[in-house]
Amino acid sequence: MRTIHTPLQKEETVKVPEPTLRRLPWYLSNVKLLKQRGERFVSSTQISNEIGIDSSQIAKDLSYVHIAGRTRVGYEIDTLISVLENFLGFTNIHKAFLFGVGSLGGALLHDSGLAHFGLEIVAAFDVNPQLVGTTLNNIPIFHSDEFEQKREEYGVHIGVLTVPIEIAQQITDKMVQGGIRAVWNFTPFRIRVPEDIVVQNTSLYAHLAVMFNRLNINETER
Amino acid sequence: MRTIHTPLQKEETVKVPEPTLRRLPWYLSNVKLLKQRGERFVSSTQISNEIGIDSSQIAKDLSYVHIAGRTRVGYEIDTLISVLENFLGFTNIHKAFLFGVGSLGGALLHDSGLAHFGLEIVAAFDVNPQLVGTTLNNIPIFHSDEFEQKREEYGVHIGVLTVPIEIAQQITDKMVQGGIRAVWNFTPFRIRVPEDIVVQNTSLYAHLAVMFNRLNINETER
Repeated sequence: MRTIHTPLQKEETVKVPEPTLRRLPWYLSNVKLLKQRGERFVSSTQISNEIGIDSSQIAKDLSYVHIAGRTRVGYEIDTLISVLENFLGFTNIHKAFLFGVGSLGGALLHDSGLAHFGLEIVAAFDVNPQLVGTTLNNIPIFHSDEFEQKREEYGVHIGVLTVPIEIAQQITDKMVQGGIRAVWNFTPFRIRVPEDIVVQNTSLYAHLAVMFNRLNINETER
Repeated sequence: MRTIHTPLQKEETVKVPEPTLRRLPWYLSNVKLLKQRGERFVSSTQISNEIGIDSSQIAKDLSYVHIAGRTRVGYEIDTLISVLENFLGFTNIHKAFLFGVGSLGGALLHDSGLAHFGLEIVAAFDVNPQLVGTTLNNIPIFHSDEFEQKREEYGVHIGVLTVPIEIAQQITDKMVQGGIRAVWNFTPFRIRVPEDIVVQNTSLYAHLAVMFNRLNINETER
């Protein structure tokens, strides 16, 4: 357990590496579990034993969140949880629009659990006349033409992309022109955006492809 | 455009690198789009121009799927699509069980679109008496205690994990003991499995964390 001091003043401008950002939620969920088991302090060694990531890696990752562990005691669990939740943005609600109320889009509108991690989908857009004007899980569905006006109205900067691949790029361009600054891309299409726009790709299909492939290999080796 | 010959006999046992497997669905969706635009042939250079990945990387990735491009003409689009879809496992239906019909689990049950990519969730499991015995999107929800019996009945080898983190490891162990060989983990918990079990982690929350963090940086830099 090492004590971490940080000399950084403007912490908002530190670019945390993406692998670190992806590991932090693992630590958070693990530490929450330890809290439930009645623990009050946790060391990076303890987290390491639980999840099988090198403890020096964990300490390094946690140094980005500006929390100091105490020698031989470790991190105070309550503090670590709240610092991590804050750092990861899970405690602020970020409003988002969803584009494309197909099967996956509709499914995401059903997932109110995203709000626990800071994302609230406040409206959806589609061109299907059977959907426009209705609501899904209390979320209004507007015609795509209304997007720019609604964006200003709601003050939204995040767009969730679940349209068919044929229009993925076109809708992305429209989102960016209308003021969207972060695109969560669920399509298997590799969208292009200007440099200052954030993109996160979540391709369920790519994960399926890896899973099917590995499963076949394992079956062959049996 | 280079012509690809492969000396491999037992193609099932070739371990395709995961980054390649994750890129192949991008090529597939892009090539489908080119087909819709009326193209009959496509070269790796063309795909490269569309999606911004180096053409030699694309040719190398495609060499794994055992398709031969023709010099100066490229790959025949129809063949490339069907070979890719087959290779990625999207043309076979793989039956799966879902564990944990909470917000995200329920959302995934609504997403019938997964079937287009080879995954059909045939049953779900939970312990909530208000859910057990009901159906969601025509998918039956059984009590978790019935899992082993149902697994043999349905012949399922894939489990989708959407339970609360507190029981993620425990349910995983139960799945593996009961004969599940691939776990699609949607929880932010890092599960542990025996070496021969396939795990794919899709942490929506990790992607959100990266997006929020990058969005804040961009806002600060403005």
